[in-house]
Amino acid sequence: MSAGGPIQHGGNLARARALFPQAPEPWIDLSTGINPHSYPYSPLPANAFSRLPEPEAAERLRLLAARAYGAPSPAHLVAGPGTQILLPIVARSVRSRSVAAILSPTYAEHARAAHLAGYEVREVSDPGVLAEADLAVVVNPNNPTGRIIPRTELLGLAARMRMKGGLLVVDEAFQDVSSADSLADAVESGGLLVLRSFGKFYGMAGVRLGFAISHPDVVARLEETLGPWSVSGPALHIANEALADRNWKRQMQERLRQDADRLDALLEAKGISVAGGTPLFRYIQHPEAQSIFNALGRHGVLIRKFHERPMDLRIGLPGGDGWERLQYALENIRL
Amino acid sequence: MSAGGPIQHGGNLARARALFPQAPEPWIDLSTGINPHSYPYSPLPANAFSRLPEPEAAERLRLLAARAYGAPSPAHLVAGPGTQILLPIVARSVRSRSVAAILSPTYAEHARAAHLAGYEVREVSDPGVLAEADLAVVVNPNNPTGRIIPRTELLGLAARMRMKGGLLVVDEAFQDVSSADSLADAVESGGLLVLRSFGKFYGMAGVRLGFAISHPDVVARLEETLGPWSVSGPALHIANEALADRNWKRQMQERLRQDADRLDALLEAKGISVAGGTPLFRYIQHPEAQSIFNALGRHGVLIRKFHERPMDLRIGLPGGDGWERLQYALENIRL
Repeated sequence: MSAGGPIQHGGNLARARALFPQAPEPWIDLSTGINPHSYPYSPLPANAFSRLPEPEAAERLRLLAARAYGAPSPAHLVAGPGTQILLPIVARSVRSRSVAAILSPTYAEHARAAHLAGYEVREVSDPGVLAEADLAVVVNPNNPTGRIIPRTELLGLAARMRMKGGLLVVDEAFQDVSSADSLADAVESGGLLVLRSFGKFYGMAGVRLGFAISHPDVVARLEETLGPWSVSGPALHIANEALADRNWKRQMQERLRQDADRLDALLEAKGISVAGGTPLFRYIQHPEAQSIFNALGRHGVLIRKFHERPMDLRIGLPGGDGWERLQYALENIRL
Repeated sequence: MSAGGPIQHGGNLARARALFPQAPEPWIDLSTGINPHSYPYSPLPANAFSRLPEPEAAERLRLLAARAYGAPSPAHLVAGPGTQILLPIVARSVRSRSVAAILSPTYAEHARAAHLAGYEVREVSDPGVLAEADLAVVVNPNNPTGRIIPRTELLGLAARMRMKGGLLVVDEAFQDVSSADSLADAVESGGLLVLRSFGKFYGMAGVRLGFAISHPDVVARLEETLGPWSVSGPALHIANEALADRNWKRQMQERLRQDADRLDALLEAKGISVAGGTPLFRYIQHPEAQSIFNALGRHGVLIRKFHERPMDLRIGLPGGDGWERLQYALENIRL
């Protein structure tokens, strides 16, 4: 694990256009795990942009997010401008920083953040060895595989981390639509920090909003580092509306499960079997992964491939006429 | 300097309402130094909120900001979600972190960030002693006093910091409308980091956008810590438009200088003399500062007072009918 060169991520349409200059526009971007059905927020007042975000609105977000994610209290949760920017801050919050163990393969930024914070980073596939590290990271459900580690196992791991002053980070970026149990309610005893992402489930990745849920002492330290006004006015406006909207959440969970079933059916009709994922993205292992990526790319459909694992693909959910474009592109693949 | 309890800042209307429950609505908030004439950005596309910010748009921002602020090249500049969140990251970027010296009185978050990064913090009023520290911080022009340290003096200080592996941070949050010379063009030799704020001059404090300008090696390390997508979609859209708009900038500089003259005249007609400031805020030292604060507060006009310096006040520029409200409130003060 080196800190050199930026990690490649989904969502880069400029790169896709450079790779497939003949592809039809507009591109259908299925390279991320972001809900294509964005939360229908009410119009933003001009002062959400012009004024400094009010402390009162930030406190309201804290209350609503603690409720929505099941944190024991608002003091157990802190908001930041995206989960991403929290990763090195969280990694640095552990006193002894010798070894970080990351349940892998997974979202590559966890390893990079741990490396930056000074750890020797081990990417491990056996959750049984995570407890040997000072910092253990589990993305649950995992991105891209969809692997779920049971709550009891994670609670046992958190207890072991707590005993030695370490930290278990559980990244629940895709928990809203998964059958994985959240650990947000279990942070009071210590040794555990849960990350939640606003933008993925609410289809609002551009506003940059994420949360860390942990013991209030840990939360207070993170908050000191983030400082005042770390969440933007537009993010506060949208999230304070969305997180209070239980109805939308329930309906969207159901809709996304149906969308995922529909996507699986499309893929399997083409003989591409789905190996895992969450309702927001499907995980594929296929010997012809590169050909599938290229064939869809030529039709202006961008999916996610992984440089370091050439058989892996991740496909997000289409929205609107994306379904037809994807179906047409799939029908024209020759495997 | 303790890291306990949050620092009080301007812009907190909820606190103002609690202090003056009988005050007329809407409040006129003059407690910050944010331009009341916000940049007239074009409508935001829905995908500025829904999609992950595109790397291409972030690169464009880098280019435009480097040009607008006079950085030697885009590699000398990095954008983050507000200057505030950059402060502890910048403070921690110095190898030896024994002593930080902050030219004071000034924006209190610099001392807090240095304290968090592990320094012993000295708040000094003599710029001549700044070079003794590992980290020296100068807000130029200063907030709230408006004090300006000449470019040659700062360049000399940067050279001394460079010689010993230290860092001079020059916070140019209010440079856009000041007669202070920017140091953004002088970062190549090292030992110097310049901070720029987007939200103040462009009247867009809610979007959270700030910049650090320094040697490319320092910039690369800051960028690694910030990670991908640190600037939101709305911020990218608005700043990429605003920073390219030289015309608006020129006209606004002139308008703000006129507004500041008008404000001075109003204050001085009441016998309140202006001791300093920048065109975006005026600095007052007055034995009856608390009475002035209260009298304006009762009229629903919020200005900034400073708990630790009871004679100091800072008054930002009104916009729209804020002028009449301020004038009326001033006329009714009995000093």
